[in-house]
Amino acid sequence: MAHKLAIVGFGGMGTWHYENVSKRVDEVEVKGVYDVRQEPMDTAASLGLKTYGSLDAVLNDPEIDIVTIATPNNFHKDIAIKAMRAGKNVISEKPVTIVSSELEEIMAVAKETGKLFSVHQNRRWDKDYLIIKKILSDKTIGEPYYIESRVQGSRGPLHGWRGYKVNGGGMVLDWGIHLLDQMLDMIDSKVVDIDAHLFSIHTPEVDDNFKTMIKFENGVSYLVEVATNCFINQPRWHVCCKEGTAVVENWDCDGKIVKLANNDELAWEDVIVYTSAGPTRTMAPRPEETTEQLELPEVEADWTNFYRNIAAVLDGKAELIVKPEQCLRVMKVVDAIFESHEKSHSISVNI
Amino acid sequence: MAHKLAIVGFGGMGTWHYENVSKRVDEVEVKGVYDVRQEPMDTAASLGLKTYGSLDAVLNDPEIDIVTIATPNNFHKDIAIKAMRAGKNVISEKPVTIVSSELEEIMAVAKETGKLFSVHQNRRWDKDYLIIKKILSDKTIGEPYYIESRVQGSRGPLHGWRGYKVNGGGMVLDWGIHLLDQMLDMIDSKVVDIDAHLFSIHTPEVDDNFKTMIKFENGVSYLVEVATNCFINQPRWHVCCKEGTAVVENWDCDGKIVKLANNDELAWEDVIVYTSAGPTRTMAPRPEETTEQLELPEVEADWTNFYRNIAAVLDGKAELIVKPEQCLRVMKVVDAIFESHEKSHSISVNI
Repeated sequence: MAHKLAIVGFGGMGTWHYENVSKRVDEVEVKGVYDVRQEPMDTAASLGLKTYGSLDAVLNDPEIDIVTIATPNNFHKDIAIKAMRAGKNVISEKPVTIVSSELEEIMAVAKETGKLFSVHQNRRWDKDYLIIKKILSDKTIGEPYYIESRVQGSRGPLHGWRGYKVNGGGMVLDWGIHLLDQMLDMIDSKVVDIDAHLFSIHTPEVDDNFKTMIKFENGVSYLVEVATNCFINQPRWHVCCKEGTAVVENWDCDGKIVKLANNDELAWEDVIVYTSAGPTRTMAPRPEETTEQLELPEVEADWTNFYRNIAAVLDGKAELIVKPEQCLRVMKVVDAIFESHEKSHSISVNI
Repeated sequence: MAHKLAIVGFGGMGTWHYENVSKRVDEVEVKGVYDVRQEPMDTAASLGLKTYGSLDAVLNDPEIDIVTIATPNNFHKDIAIKAMRAGKNVISEKPVTIVSSELEEIMAVAKETGKLFSVHQNRRWDKDYLIIKKILSDKTIGEPYYIESRVQGSRGPLHGWRGYKVNGGGMVLDWGIHLLDQMLDMIDSKVVDIDAHLFSIHTPEVDDNFKTMIKFENGVSYLVEVATNCFINQPRWHVCCKEGTAVVENWDCDGKIVKLANNDELAWEDVIVYTSAGPTRTMAPRPEETTEQLELPEVEADWTNFYRNIAAVLDGKAELIVKPEQCLRVMKVVDAIFESHEKSHSISVNI
């Protein structure tokens, strides 16, 4: 029998949960919706969903065993705690909270109640990410040492509540959370230093553009960038490994791998490139026959595995994929990003 | 009458000074060469240049009024000091020294002797750099807030003495010096924080790849990267200003400017992009009619102005362009880069 789900907060993401779970996840059934606004409630009713008059009404419905929270970020914690205490399993949209200490409160209640708690870190199933993850785990071009992960747009001012500090707005807590979660999921090492550069170009209260340079204990450095004021985009991924470079250009996953095929000592004397103000041997191009171009690997990218995993965990058949402890690491990185920005200095950590 | 120049160190760069000054700079004449190696001396002789048997022989030639030093980096200081004390004006190849304190010694001798001292920071005349400098000074796309300046190659192990620590090898002191000098020449503000990530992929003694994130007092952040193990190149320049983005792809100066033409509030509700694991409104593309594409500006990039300026300064007709105090700022940034790397932490500065 399918697990019954209620969605609290039926805006953009709430609607997306409904549509995708309804159409694509047999193991979970969306039963009803609660939103403080009338318009989303009307939409829910027109879709044949039960509309609850209050959060308590959701929590008092004994049929509901999972509550998905898709409200503005500042409401996640209180709703999650209340729902678990009412005996519900809980999925929170990201960012799970605004600071890590709030997530620790939630995790304490999950432990106390024994309920399942997870966070909708759906972008662990993004195809571009899974391609890079596979290149690294297969060691196609050897060990990584420098990775750039960027999401760039140019729409300027942030949409709705994402522009307000009280709601946990800003790009670190929005797209940043995804890129940081992917990073920690992929690099098997501790974060030791975080240097953050936040900008408020169009949205005075929060960061609408940021770059953060992160250093891992194993020697990998990792640049995470989110931009809303970038008019000429760079690749989604640029990954430097010891034996080659991989690029994924965009969400359609155009891109390539260029791999070192022959690292015999090159004849330096013969190859000089002339720039307008001088020559360079160091930056002369490498002969083409000493490299090999590979296509990006094929990967299966099925986001619905997120909800299938939740159902399987509740049925005692699987281990939880998106674990609260992992989300706590992400939130600790976020804490350090804001601290680094405030201090105009990098922050030493052990995360 | 042309100023008479002797070149000390007649390798790759020394030869380049000879060829370009001889062919293109009427105000300066290359008279002779000294190198500790026989082969370059034979080359010099075959070119009709005087070959000096020792550094002292150069310094004792009363006709010589400028000495250009193009030896490995660790010899610059002693030769510069000796030459100025012998009454010569001195141009040093970059990096002028390996640490800033050595440059301060040179500057003290320049002051004591009254001789001209400059550094061959020729890449202030690189066309790609002058294009970006003009875009910023013309405020074509408003104020900058984030700049990436990269030079990427894939030839791996560094050439000759550039691979050795004792010679001041490594990419920070090689291409890095140029990119940092351009940065300080362009951004009219103090450097306040430096976070450096150095890698030794193929050359164990020195950095052969590095990234450094630099924060200025005026709010600009600036990434400088030099790579010798990058197989898929990124643009030479990616410059984010408040009202647009400029890209120069390469030394041939392909590229473009995309400028915000209409920043009226966009209708957010209608535009959602679906990635494989979820929708995004924030990163949906901006309608094309709200931006405008401009060509990169035309600039004059004549490197020979470096030597013409030296001659004009000696003739009392101009102010020195590449000033030792500017080079000292660059060297102080370099000191902080190495310190940041050692400490795995950013370094607060006031440079």
